[in-house]
Amino acid sequence: MPVYHAPIQDMRFVLHELFDSSTITQLPGNADFTPELMDSVLEEAAKMAENVLFPLNQVGDLEGCVYENGVVRTPTGFRDAYKAFCEGGWGAMAASPEWGGQGMPIPAAMMVEEMLCSANVAFGLYPGLTHGAYVALSHAGSEEQKKTYLPNLVTGKWSGTMCLTEPHCGTDLGMLRTKAEPNADGSYSITGNKIFISAGEHDLTENIIHLVLARLPDAPRGVKGISMFVVPKFLVREDGSIGPRNGLQCTAIEHKMGIKASATCAMSFDGAKGWLVGEPNKGLAGMFKMMNTERLSVGMQGLGIAETAYQNAVTYARDRIQGRSLTGAKAPDRQADPILVHPDVRRMLLTMRAYIEGCRGLAGWVARELEILNKSTDDEAKQAADDFSSLMTPVVKAMFTDMGFEIASLAVQTYGGHGYIRDHGIEQYVRDARISMLYEGTNGIQALDLVGRKLPQDGGRLLTRFLDPVMEFIDAHADNAALEPFLPPLQQAIEHMQEATGFIMENAMSNHDEIGAASVDYLRLFGLTALAFVWARMVAIAAPKAEEEGQGQFYRAKVQTAKFFMERLLPQTGALLAAIRSGSTTMMEFEDAAF
Amino acid sequence: MPVYHAPIQDMRFVLHELFDSSTITQLPGNADFTPELMDSVLEEAAKMAENVLFPLNQVGDLEGCVYENGVVRTPTGFRDAYKAFCEGGWGAMAASPEWGGQGMPIPAAMMVEEMLCSANVAFGLYPGLTHGAYVALSHAGSEEQKKTYLPNLVTGKWSGTMCLTEPHCGTDLGMLRTKAEPNADGSYSITGNKIFISAGEHDLTENIIHLVLARLPDAPRGVKGISMFVVPKFLVREDGSIGPRNGLQCTAIEHKMGIKASATCAMSFDGAKGWLVGEPNKGLAGMFKMMNTERLSVGMQGLGIAETAYQNAVTYARDRIQGRSLTGAKAPDRQADPILVHPDVRRMLLTMRAYIEGCRGLAGWVARELEILNKSTDDEAKQAADDFSSLMTPVVKAMFTDMGFEIASLAVQTYGGHGYIRDHGIEQYVRDARISMLYEGTNGIQALDLVGRKLPQDGGRLLTRFLDPVMEFIDAHADNAALEPFLPPLQQAIEHMQEATGFIMENAMSNHDEIGAASVDYLRLFGLTALAFVWARMVAIAAPKAEEEGQGQFYRAKVQTAKFFMERLLPQTGALLAAIRSGSTTMMEFEDAAF
Repeated sequence: MPVYHAPIQDMRFVLHELFDSSTITQLPGNADFTPELMDSVLEEAAKMAENVLFPLNQVGDLEGCVYENGVVRTPTGFRDAYKAFCEGGWGAMAASPEWGGQGMPIPAAMMVEEMLCSANVAFGLYPGLTHGAYVALSHAGSEEQKKTYLPNLVTGKWSGTMCLTEPHCGTDLGMLRTKAEPNADGSYSITGNKIFISAGEHDLTENIIHLVLARLPDAPRGVKGISMFVVPKFLVREDGSIGPRNGLQCTAIEHKMGIKASATCAMSFDGAKGWLVGEPNKGLAGMFKMMNTERLSVGMQGLGIAETAYQNAVTYARDRIQGRSLTGAKAPDRQADPILVHPDVRRMLLTMRAYIEGCRGLAGWVARELEILNKSTDDEAKQAADDFSSLMTPVVKAMFTDMGFEIASLAVQTYGGHGYIRDHGIEQYVRDARISMLYEGTNGIQALDLVGRKLPQDGGRLLTRFLDPVMEFIDAHADNAALEPFLPPLQQAIEHMQEATGFIMENAMSNHDEIGAASVDYLRLFGLTALAFVWARMVAIAAPKAEEEGQGQFYRAKVQTAKFFMERLLPQTGALLAAIRSGSTTMMEFEDAAF
Repeated sequence: MPVYHAPIQDMRFVLHELFDSSTITQLPGNADFTPELMDSVLEEAAKMAENVLFPLNQVGDLEGCVYENGVVRTPTGFRDAYKAFCEGGWGAMAASPEWGGQGMPIPAAMMVEEMLCSANVAFGLYPGLTHGAYVALSHAGSEEQKKTYLPNLVTGKWSGTMCLTEPHCGTDLGMLRTKAEPNADGSYSITGNKIFISAGEHDLTENIIHLVLARLPDAPRGVKGISMFVVPKFLVREDGSIGPRNGLQCTAIEHKMGIKASATCAMSFDGAKGWLVGEPNKGLAGMFKMMNTERLSVGMQGLGIAETAYQNAVTYARDRIQGRSLTGAKAPDRQADPILVHPDVRRMLLTMRAYIEGCRGLAGWVARELEILNKSTDDEAKQAADDFSSLMTPVVKAMFTDMGFEIASLAVQTYGGHGYIRDHGIEQYVRDARISMLYEGTNGIQALDLVGRKLPQDGGRLLTRFLDPVMEFIDAHADNAALEPFLPPLQQAIEHMQEATGFIMENAMSNHDEIGAASVDYLRLFGLTALAFVWARMVAIAAPKAEEEGQGQFYRAKVQTAKFFMERLLPQTGALLAAIRSGSTTMMEFEDAAF
């Protein structure tokens, strides 16, 4: 049976030591969120994740959701778990106190989200989508819409969805066909078919609030003619109670590779009553508010799954005895050594660990900037935070999810043939992780967003929000002996990244295909460089504490994992640079008919 | 619905142009196997793969095998397909005419095997294991055993298994516990439990011939005390007819991530009657004859799945319209361009293609050497062939299967969210491919075999069987303008590989952990270098024909794919060398308790 223990020690390291959490407490409105309070939130969240959600992860996969006549049943135990989740206030965690939320600082909330994804990523999609709908409505909705929907979304009494994709359009929303015809009462009649709607129908809540992208009759073609509508499953009466059923239904659920406990619905809107959210034809902007939140959340899915996969691989590597160490028996009293003695097993485990802890540190950084963006009153700091989080959103989404899949697969490899057997619960992580590379914009789309939009934006200013602190750090630690083995590889990676950036910017001006040709490799090169910086920062903190009584082992492990990252994983940047520098010619000249 | 068309044109290129098939015809016993005959075999095999086996691939996954009271039912259609397969003589293809086989040259047989794996890898395991049992028995069995079992294994009337793994031992067979007690009549009573037995029980054949590893009462401990026994499901009467049921049964089948149509059985031997195969305590050597054949076959599983995944990704990329080319609409009459216009989609497709065609060429090389080993009368040529195929077996097994999984995942990525849906049939390839990295020795074990055994063997002679032809080729083509862009990257890769080899050999003498620390990265570095050489050879053939009428497009595509491989994929060798050079210190110093 799989194991999961929330990595609270490492989370606290990121929260308090890597990014001084007291500076978060000092932001307006955060006075109550002391470092101690954040700690107790993590501890409570860990209990919920470990004891309530994690035990349902395998049963959720085995049973999946069941569809019958428009109704969707979630797997055994999900209703009770959802009730417990809402009663614990976890759905309200990140929402504003104005609407009944707890206004939890994002750095802590994001760690709770990681736990949720580690424990049961399919479950997590239900409150996750609700929070996305909350974000979109609280940004773009009218006061009346907010009052009508937000309080119940925050408590989790109702849930939310985002209805974008149609059978013929996903990435290219400009082609969407769902129509919205105005009614006399100011509402609209929504008609069309949507697919891949997570939590589109289920048995966890009394109402489901759909945010639907559709076209008004006079809308311009393409993405500039898309509006957003709020379309509840049950109409809401003036007194806030549940009214009649709206004209929409779930017509099927998808049978998928993984996240089987998450209902992925085909939805049919047949003159359903909806209300315009925000301005006409500006629906995509509103949806993207939600989308950016979702993209970071999807990144946390990759990280969360990776953490559980790692923990199980370690447990197996300790328990499974097989063969002898190449340097002589390490457990001579037993028939064989635990496979943890084998260098290649350690290589796999340290690869997982180096990515996971690096990504957790990077997530902590992005979360801190988002918190500053949300709560600071310093315009300059807010702008910097906005720049940085915009820049990093596609990196977190794509790199974390690529890693989630890769790490889950490495965990299977650690198990040998046993990893392929469903009962062990480990292959589920590979299947569950695979979706995160696809939804909320494929990882290829994330890379295009990074290279085609974020890099050139505002004359390249966004990128300086990453490079400036790196340069400051390198300068500040030039004489720090503890960092001696770490700064040269970091500098090398930065050079690779800058060379790649220069190459793309120069060539993309005359040929836009250079953007697409470089984008995925560039995102990975950027991501690895960001991890290298995070690891160097972690070493700066950990190295002086490595010989401390008690906690020394934790800090020594940090320094050694950093070393492993620099030696074994970071050299990929050179290969990525070479690939990028080869440009678009070969791939574009290849004859279409020859594929 | 997925598509598959056997890539006969490329197979013919490898068979006839890359490795002159007439030299195969000239080997003793091969006179009938003219190049023309091999072509018609490929064409007939393509029909069988495309029309009989491929249509059952999805249903096999959906239904899986069903276990009830010791009996295993294969999915709908499998019995009929198996009958057709045997009637077509496909099971007998690679077996010796002495036992009713066709004695097909291995280069052609291996391509048929690729088709089988492309079409339905789970189905392919049934005849695949039978062929493995045939190989082991024909090498190590007594004349009487051969007469009793081989003819029916060759026709496919009976099937075979290899029973190695026990719950507590897989990689480390030294720990195996199954016992063989001598009976008065010269037979043995076999008692013990085996797991992960592919085709251990099913409804395709009237008898199942198990090759079981077990210990004699006086056997030495460890791997030197393992003997091989032939243990039929039904005892065979003297007249060759089926006798009483033997004392063994299937107690369960595993529920797995993929290859669900292949019955993976837990087998209980309870005093089952068996006969010693070969010498006492030499069972592992006999089994390894079978195992090497199996390892190459498993490599072909990776290649086969990759080919189908690629074909489907290409089909989807042509059909799916979404977005516009970054350099302006390519299909202005349609609402959007096919996604094939996007550089990143082409990057994914060319990555798949470059690995697939490179691996197919490398497989062709190994197959030719195996054929020489089997049939040549020239001892020197045989020794060279034995060396080369021994060296390459772990590379083919591990690299091809890593690639199979990676390519299947890239195909899913090409599909976007649709790739995650079972109906499209594409995510099945990811699940089906994952096992090949685990069984018949995990890919980590393959890497240890390469670095720890094959590299040092006979003073490093095996490696020269690869390096010598590379050097000859580079010299011979020094003035070949067509190869100008290709030789420098090949030379660079060779240098990386030689530097890595030197580093490992030097350091491993004082510290055996250096072998395990380097092995997986080294195998990949070696494999990429081998692919670079194969690509350079293919360019030498294709470049002069690239402007020919009719076939020119095929040869142009070869040259361009080679270019893509050199530019985009081969640079990984530098990163791998850097990782290898970091050695074992960091991973071994990491404290066990800190994982």
